[in-house]
Amino acid sequence: MKPPNIDIRLRLLHGEHIALGNGKADLLEAIAATGSISQAAKQLGMSYRRAWLLVDTMNQCFVTPLVITQTGGSHGGGTQLTELGVQVLQVFRQMQHAALQATEPFEQQLAQWLVD
Amino acid sequence: MKPPNIDIRLRLLHGEHIALGNGKADLLEAIAATGSISQAAKQLGMSYRRAWLLVDTMNQCFVTPLVITQTGGSHGGGTQLTELGVQVLQVFRQMQHAALQATEPFEQQLAQWLVD
Repeated sequence: MKPPNIDIRLRLLHGEHIALGNGKADLLEAIAATGSISQAAKQLGMSYRRAWLLVDTMNQCFVTPLVITQTGGSHGGGTQLTELGVQVLQVFRQMQHAALQATEPFEQQLAQWLVD
Repeated sequence: MKPPNIDIRLRLLHGEHIALGNGKADLLEAIAATGSISQAAKQLGMSYRRAWLLVDTMNQCFVTPLVITQTGGSHGGGTQLTELGVQVLQVFRQMQHAALQATEPFEQQLAQWLVD
């Protein structure tokens, strides 16, 4: 019997907004890796506009921005995570990991009842 | 500061199907409570057709059906959860509870960084 998967989606709600979720966390990670919203968007297969809107929502939900774009400088600026952005991403990944570990025994119990 | 909410969606995948998820678990619970797919659908604000399809998917993913409809009898039959249906629902609720407990400390950590 091949192991079934459990798909866990965590969303941190802030009023009517989703301050952070699986997709936004992936976007933060891609921005940190590429140093660019447009490159991060491309990597995740989403439009630049959508990526920008997700970043804007995050930046508005948190006390200080998670992502900043600097202009000028010797490299012509760039986009990066702020200190808070790095922390938020780290805690979200820890939360995902904790959820995965906590659900695993129940998943295995359910899996034994699935058709092979 | 009002507490933000964490929204957790768990999906048990079986090949290309979602064998069980938050919506299907709610449907099982509503069927158990009402003894009827159409009443359960009404209670959850979904069409009978959609409820029936969700039940059909569940019944096909598990080794034996989770929901059965009996015809005839002094009450004209009815729909109910099988023993496996009851067990599966119970384990899924336990899994949701475990995920909620595991994520709570991280949620609180994230919440302190949200705008009031």
